[in-house]
Amino acid sequence: MKKIGVLTSGGDAPGMNAAIRSVVRTAIFKGFEVAGIKRGYQGLINGDIEDMTISSVGGIINRGGTILGTARSEHFKTEEGFKKALDILHIFKIEGLVVIGGDGSMKGAEKLSQAGFPAIGLPGTIDNDLGYTDFTIGFDTAVNTVLDAIGNIRDTSSSHERAMIIEVMGRNCGDIALYAGLAGGADGIIVPEEELDIDYLCERLIKGKNRGKQHNIILLSEGANITSKELIKLIEEKTGIESRISVLGYIQRGGTPTANDRILASKLGCRAVELLLEGKAGRAVGIKGYDIVDYKIDEALKMRDELDHDMFNLALMLS
Amino acid sequence: MKKIGVLTSGGDAPGMNAAIRSVVRTAIFKGFEVAGIKRGYQGLINGDIEDMTISSVGGIINRGGTILGTARSEHFKTEEGFKKALDILHIFKIEGLVVIGGDGSMKGAEKLSQAGFPAIGLPGTIDNDLGYTDFTIGFDTAVNTVLDAIGNIRDTSSSHERAMIIEVMGRNCGDIALYAGLAGGADGIIVPEEELDIDYLCERLIKGKNRGKQHNIILLSEGANITSKELIKLIEEKTGIESRISVLGYIQRGGTPTANDRILASKLGCRAVELLLEGKAGRAVGIKGYDIVDYKIDEALKMRDELDHDMFNLALMLS
Amino acid sequence: MKKIGVLTSGGDAPGMNAAIRSVVRTAIFKGFEVAGIKRGYQGLINGDIEDMTISSVGGIINRGGTILGTARSEHFKTEEGFKKALDILHIFKIEGLVVIGGDGSMKGAEKLSQAGFPAIGLPGTIDNDLGYTDFTIGFDTAVNTVLDAIGNIRDTSSSHERAMIIEVMGRNCGDIALYAGLAGGADGIIVPEEELDIDYLCERLIKGKNRGKQHNIILLSEGANITSKELIKLIEEKTGIESRISVLGYIQRGGTPTANDRILASKLGCRAVELLLEGKAGRAVGIKGYDIVDYKIDEALKMRDELDHDMFNLALMLS
Amino acid sequence: MKKIGVLTSGGDAPGMNAAIRSVVRTAIFKGFEVAGIKRGYQGLINGDIEDMTISSVGGIINRGGTILGTARSEHFKTEEGFKKALDILHIFKIEGLVVIGGDGSMKGAEKLSQAGFPAIGLPGTIDNDLGYTDFTIGFDTAVNTVLDAIGNIRDTSSSHERAMIIEVMGRNCGDIALYAGLAGGADGIIVPEEELDIDYLCERLIKGKNRGKQHNIILLSEGANITSKELIKLIEEKTGIESRISVLGYIQRGGTPTANDRILASKLGCRAVELLLEGKAGRAVGIKGYDIVDYKIDEALKMRDELDHDMFNLALMLS
Repeated sequence: MKKIGVLTSGGDAPGMNAAIRSVVRTAIFKGFEVAGIKRGYQGLINGDIEDMTISSVGGIINRGGTILGTARSEHFKTEEGFKKALDILHIFKIEGLVVIGGDGSMKGAEKLSQAGFPAIGLPGTIDNDLGYTDFTIGFDTAVNTVLDAIGNIRDTSSSHERAMIIEVMGRNCGDIALYAGLAGGADGIIVPEEELDIDYLCERLIKGKNRGKQHNIILLSEGANITSKELIKLIEEKTGIESRISVLGYIQRGGTPTANDRILASKLGCRAVELLLEGKAGRAVGIKGYDIVDYKIDEALKMRDELDHDMFNLALMLS
Repeated sequence: MKKIGVLTSGGDAPGMNAAIRSVVRTAIFKGFEVAGIKRGYQGLINGDIEDMTISSVGGIINRGGTILGTARSEHFKTEEGFKKALDILHIFKIEGLVVIGGDGSMKGAEKLSQAGFPAIGLPGTIDNDLGYTDFTIGFDTAVNTVLDAIGNIRDTSSSHERAMIIEVMGRNCGDIALYAGLAGGADGIIVPEEELDIDYLCERLIKGKNRGKQHNIILLSEGANITSKELIKLIEEKTGIESRISVLGYIQRGGTPTANDRILASKLGCRAVELLLEGKAGRAVGIKGYDIVDYKIDEALKMRDELDHDMFNLALMLS
Repeated sequence: MKKIGVLTSGGDAPGMNAAIRSVVRTAIFKGFEVAGIKRGYQGLINGDIEDMTISSVGGIINRGGTILGTARSEHFKTEEGFKKALDILHIFKIEGLVVIGGDGSMKGAEKLSQAGFPAIGLPGTIDNDLGYTDFTIGFDTAVNTVLDAIGNIRDTSSSHERAMIIEVMGRNCGDIALYAGLAGGADGIIVPEEELDIDYLCERLIKGKNRGKQHNIILLSEGANITSKELIKLIEEKTGIESRISVLGYIQRGGTPTANDRILASKLGCRAVELLLEGKAGRAVGIKGYDIVDYKIDEALKMRDELDHDMFNLALMLS
Repeated sequence: MKKIGVLTSGGDAPGMNAAIRSVVRTAIFKGFEVAGIKRGYQGLINGDIEDMTISSVGGIINRGGTILGTARSEHFKTEEGFKKALDILHIFKIEGLVVIGGDGSMKGAEKLSQAGFPAIGLPGTIDNDLGYTDFTIGFDTAVNTVLDAIGNIRDTSSSHERAMIIEVMGRNCGDIALYAGLAGGADGIIVPEEELDIDYLCERLIKGKNRGKQHNIILLSEGANITSKELIKLIEEKTGIESRISVLGYIQRGGTPTANDRILASKLGCRAVELLLEGKAGRAVGIKGYDIVDYKIDEALKMRDELDHDMFNLALMLS
């Protein structure tokens, strides 16, 4: 193998640039050439590809987003698009690929590997919704961004003695809500994985109010089985506490990555290149405890991402 | 005059605590006693009042929100509520009042002064919508909070080559959008005070795209004559550029106040106490250029808050 | 056991308040009373103790430092002081103790336990110098604070094309330098655990300069075997690159704790109370991978804190 | 005039990039070509010059430092160096120059103008030490950076009940210490412009301690007539309060510029180009109150930069 490619795909996440930097520099250090593929699988199909040097990834470790750009590609999912992608990889003399993204991106890497083209997947998504890895690249930054927002919102919540419902991202995974909720001292955390006991939540809000608590913060995961509007209605009816909604939106997807996300991305990027060097294909790289691990992508994607119930209960007990 | 009161009213704003601190400590330094009135005019009516010492306002200069709490009071606007408020002031032996808030709060201070009770108004609102002062307490912090959000959103906007419409607060005043838009290098700034030329905006977006610009940020003031949904529809139709909306919401109202807001609040709080000491009543305190100024409240509220058109044009020229 | 005490000791660290909150609220939830001991072991000897309620620890999870205060106590190390401490614990009817601090603080907890008084140690220090736990409370925040500083210093380093030597804390442990150095893309990381190859460092600086790199950041751990002055002299002599020193100092010890530190502190605080409930004594609680663990304190303190050499080499390879 | 040049000189300051962006884009908008001169006057002498386009300054408004680089040049101060600079300007067909920097940089612009080459000076320095303008580009960011540091240091100061002496930049100007000190609630502010009354300072520290204040923050300007070591010795001797020093150093010179610095830089950069267009030379551009102003450089540099004594007294009264 002489030349490897790297692409980012799906939603962007802080730390993707650190992962790209790690892939590029590790690869060059190990004697590979590296091609940067722009705009995900769609850019691959379009031959939107440039050679990368050590300098190409200078000064990017601290930047959110992805310098390669990203996109979702329906075309790649078609037989014709997939064949085109393989042709382009051949034409550009790319012999191995590192894909940074979420589950959809991983599936693409798996499909390429099954077709005989070695590809490795790195978990790049703020949602932390991949069961085979404790953490995904971008998650720690997103949690800290939400925590900052909670700080701001708590100020105004206290001043007005209102309950604030903060809706956060995470698709079907409640981890952003759970981690930011525990760290932010939220009075309620509503996630897709746990049934909401609205009466218990309201009891807590009322008790808090009675002991002089001036603010109430409720973290609502976007994938939960209740909308923010329904929730606000229930809370106001049952407790009489004035409530407001804040949907954090896209600020969660950007920002300077935290130390953790940069370090995780650096370690995973290095490991991905090593795997290609070892002749591996179709592996998903992740972290378990303190260890860097890798699994067959199809098996990795089958591992269920379970909510940490102990942590959920801890958050309730401490708030 | 032996004892003065201080209250915050209307929407909270970062820097209100610095203003409270300045009022309390200046007053004590000048030989007054100080009473802190909780929850705005409603708290005044309810006699929700506590004596304040130098220590009461220790460690608050860096905190957003208001330790006194704030509320909007319909009751105070009634004759009966107003009379009740005057009675309470009398009972608590409060002989002068500093009110920190927006235009509604100022009107209350004016009404009290006309009824013979000396009250001074300080401009505490993130909206910067008071014409008699260049800046209000909280505005600088809100602009910098929006700027941080623009930074985060720009990352994801670049990665996906999307246009992002960022809706910001400001009621009928476009200043938050204008200041954050100029400072954030926004490609479009849409404010209540300027008619939107949608074709010109779209032309700029297309030109930017053609010269390789990967992100487009459009600041939309909440008071503008177009909704974010209408805007997104027009942009996508006319330019074909994929667009997304981010409504920043309540994060703009909180957060650690900037140096500027703390300094402004400190200066204005001190001046308010001096004015009471000088026997003045019904004055609105503000800043013009480098100078602390004060006007009769009714005249202050008549001064129109005009958009800085030079700045608006500068923002367009530089983006 | 009816009442437990909690104290912080040694140097303060961000997240100590989150740990106190967790200890207090878990204990109350489990039916204990809780006494807060001020100013570490010295405060214990002085009987500087207050009962704590759920509300005592409200609004502190996001604050750096420790609301209990901390101090180093020589008195406690004497037989007489130690006996006094035991007496005070008896007088205040405290039957178990959670100590949050570094190795010195742990030793105190061990000594108390050996004297028959059950005490549990939590690792609270920014230095990450305790071998029995992957991470200490405060370390993640300190690393991110250093990372922010690197960001600022990189700006000015680039503008002036200087090498900047950034001296960071950590006592005899190079982890702050290593983690911040890897995450910050430092060109050199000098730690107590690795011998400095000054020629290799200078070669890298020169190569970087030759390929157009405008800034050079070198992280120097305070415990390294070279002073910043010696280092600057060597670099300037050998490379001719103008160099400057920045000693970060106390800013590393404070600041709003990160999500990770708050979560770690919350988990460890809860576990400490559970251990007391289970009748355990003299245990040091920590984290290994994803798991909360505990060891006998004397054994925990014997575990050597080794530098992660893979990570050190990764940092060099990627910079 | 067809082509103008722009350079940054002296110490870098956050917002310089926003100023460069404004100069470049305003000039192009007005029909000029623009040349970017690298590394200050030294780069000018060396012909280190590149044409700039609208895109050259894309994505830099939020970055600290200066993309043009900066340096101090002794060579330019010699007759031969100065003549060389004029030759280079002629060779590169540059007919006007905007210089962004401190007083030394301004003097260079003045000298060029006197030699018949039109040059305009913009105040770019964190020190705020230019008397002709209320604020310099970079000052607001530096003050807010110091404020963040105060926040961190206050945490650890409270925890240990120590006095912390924070040494800040500013050369002979105490403004950084004054503004950050007022905004940060410092207990003492020591600046070059005011004589230190050490007994009064110590009295305040002792009084604060007696009323339960747990932290003491003293801002010390680097240009003050006492060193931090002397100060710490005096404080410990006179008050018995344990004290520590933190020299903030280079972190004050970098960082993402605040909204204010970006807006000020944008306004001043535009005005500089307009002045060249109007045929003016040797003008220093600044801000007075809300207005953009300009003076003859030699007169501007004669205006004394006075400390705002009212503000200094306010800071003392409120702390």
